[in-house]
Amino acid sequence: MAIITLTTDFGTADGYVGAMKGVIARLAGSPAPAVVDLAHDIPPGDIAHAAWVIATSTTEFPHGSIHVVVVDPGVGGTRREVVVRARGRWYVGPDNGVFAYVAEPSSEAYAIENERFRAERVSRTFHGRDVFASTAAAIASGEDPATAGRSVQLAGELPWGPREPATGRIVHIDRFGNLISDFPEAEAGRSVAIAGTVLPLLATYENVPPGELLAYIGSAGTVEIAVRDGRADRRLGLARGALVLPVPSESVGQGPYR
Amino acid sequence: MAIITLTTDFGTADGYVGAMKGVIARLAGSPAPAVVDLAHDIPPGDIAHAAWVIATSTTEFPHGSIHVVVVDPGVGGTRREVVVRARGRWYVGPDNGVFAYVAEPSSEAYAIENERFRAERVSRTFHGRDVFASTAAAIASGEDPATAGRSVQLAGELPWGPREPATGRIVHIDRFGNLISDFPEAEAGRSVAIAGTVLPLLATYENVPPGELLAYIGSAGTVEIAVRDGRADRRLGLARGALVLPVPSESVGQGPYR
Amino acid sequence: MAIITLTTDFGTADGYVGAMKGVIARLAGSPAPAVVDLAHDIPPGDIAHAAWVIATSTTEFPHGSIHVVVVDPGVGGTRREVVVRARGRWYVGPDNGVFAYVAEPSSEAYAIENERFRAERVSRTFHGRDVFASTAAAIASGEDPATAGRSVQLAGELPWGPREPATGRIVHIDRFGNLISDFPEAEAGRSVAIAGTVLPLLATYENVPPGELLAYIGSAGTVEIAVRDGRADRRLGLARGALVLPVPSESVGQGPYR
Repeated sequence: MAIITLTTDFGTADGYVGAMKGVIARLAGSPAPAVVDLAHDIPPGDIAHAAWVIATSTTEFPHGSIHVVVVDPGVGGTRREVVVRARGRWYVGPDNGVFAYVAEPSSEAYAIENERFRAERVSRTFHGRDVFASTAAAIASGEDPATAGRSVQLAGELPWGPREPATGRIVHIDRFGNLISDFPEAEAGRSVAIAGTVLPLLATYENVPPGELLAYIGSAGTVEIAVRDGRADRRLGLARGALVLPVPSESVGQGPYR
Repeated sequence: MAIITLTTDFGTADGYVGAMKGVIARLAGSPAPAVVDLAHDIPPGDIAHAAWVIATSTTEFPHGSIHVVVVDPGVGGTRREVVVRARGRWYVGPDNGVFAYVAEPSSEAYAIENERFRAERVSRTFHGRDVFASTAAAIASGEDPATAGRSVQLAGELPWGPREPATGRIVHIDRFGNLISDFPEAEAGRSVAIAGTVLPLLATYENVPPGELLAYIGSAGTVEIAVRDGRADRRLGLARGALVLPVPSESVGQGPYR
Repeated sequence: MAIITLTTDFGTADGYVGAMKGVIARLAGSPAPAVVDLAHDIPPGDIAHAAWVIATSTTEFPHGSIHVVVVDPGVGGTRREVVVRARGRWYVGPDNGVFAYVAEPSSEAYAIENERFRAERVSRTFHGRDVFASTAAAIASGEDPATAGRSVQLAGELPWGPREPATGRIVHIDRFGNLISDFPEAEAGRSVAIAGTVLPLLATYENVPPGELLAYIGSAGTVEIAVRDGRADRRLGLARGALVLPVPSESVGQGPYR
């Protein structure tokens, strides 16, 4: 049974997600694919948020699974509609940066042009329904994604670009207000500095009293900053892009790091 | 495999949606129907919002699919519980206007009275669980909806009633703050007037700079008003019911239309 | 087909729920289990909220169904990960009180220790993915839950402890602002007192004019307080834990009950 996941900024108050599911139910063959909601409350138009969400969730699904991402403020404009092969899975959506963490510019990618992958009449503002849902249904039904259209090179990028060695950036703020960086455990050492504060890397929330800041290796294998039973984003007043830096061992315990 | 979709104002923080899914899982036969979440964050009690959501999404599903709608502020009171045949699909819910866009007063409709369609003990405040979920499960299991109860005529209406020719009304405001009208493309001409402002019909968001108002034919085939990367509802301060009018071609380009 | 439900405080904007679904899709055998979203907007860390939600929804599912609950502010700390047999169903989650309404201290329960029930590498902050999802997948695949680990006694409790006879407490506030108590119909008599106000038990919302307070037996079989087309939580300014008391019949109609 094919698996199709859906990640959108459509929320759960409108009919957009339902319309996509309807298209898949109507077009997909038998046996019906499993359609799985990943996240529909991506902040409207927030491409980087979606990119992180799919990087940390779709990779848990089996190889061959199909992942549709519709965070698409440029719908109907110049960005391309694409299907991408990455991490042994298929990704379907706009080429606007949403695939930046799972794919490379060199990843196998195709423009979605062939009529077997698109609705007969494609609206200008709802490609989630008219292009991406129908493409997912086509792949689930056995169509070869390589026949969707021309082979293309991915162009979408995130605002903060690729990471430099020995430097992390806050790339995601989650529901709990945790600040999640792209700084991998292997480079982080024993303490990190963020916004002028040095924090040792601890194991989990209960290592500090309620209300205290802490740093730890999060579930993505990278440094995270949290406040136990609180919100680190509000405590530190930081937005995405803020730097997370390693602290030389000898500096730790000598007062604020500036 | 039968398909049952769920649209409610129960949100995603309580057990109400889960209870409905449990009833369906318990009562439906084998093979189990596919239970599909359409939208659970319909604003509490907002019948017109639900009516638009199901009109623009359930119609994408295959014929014979079953669509349960529970936005039911009058639960336990005088409005009827009904199953309705419309657009080749089955609709299950309260007769309070939620079916106004998909059904006609003349649509085939039945009161849900028969014990095979209702829980043994029906609460006064949760017909989603005790009447509508069990009805959907019964239909999915092969019960004939025409045996649910007496044939009835639908009575539910929306506040703005049926549309008059050459006049559109804002009937839905979506997650992005887009103002969606019921003014069909065929009647709209090349420009429309809303709240004293004339807007030409453009193709998509990128046809205007960020922050600008635009009008276009939306994914429902009707006129929509949006602000690129912004919210048209806040910009114009409009609520549902506001008029959208066609503009005679000769008036366009001659300053504000009043 | 096995059924696995998911209840979390992960929201619908992050990848956490998706990661759990991915693990289940990857580990569960064939035929794939049905994975059902119960509620993902449990307020962050609100154990009592989750406890009520699962008590009023999972019990509608068939016997043998598997219910995963991840509201786990103490993740990585001292609370145990458990699988519990209660009400003829399996519950999987942290032993922190989330199972207080469905299980007893004497319920059959096992610590989740065996490697067949856990990811190879378990993070310190995301047991939803690394312990609970994998345990659910293992049970769905036919593993005997009794082999998950040592038999244990549940320790988690709710702030308000067990109920005393002839006394109810507000234990849940739902999306509509309704105040839901644990005071059962059988003990409630014909009127109840809350915050110094006496309310007769009525049948449903339409028994009072819009904007008025009312009490009634809710869908859980217990006393609820609501404002028709409004929010009782705001009207009364009450939080969970507030008392709901029976009113002797002779007192009713004699002015405020104090």
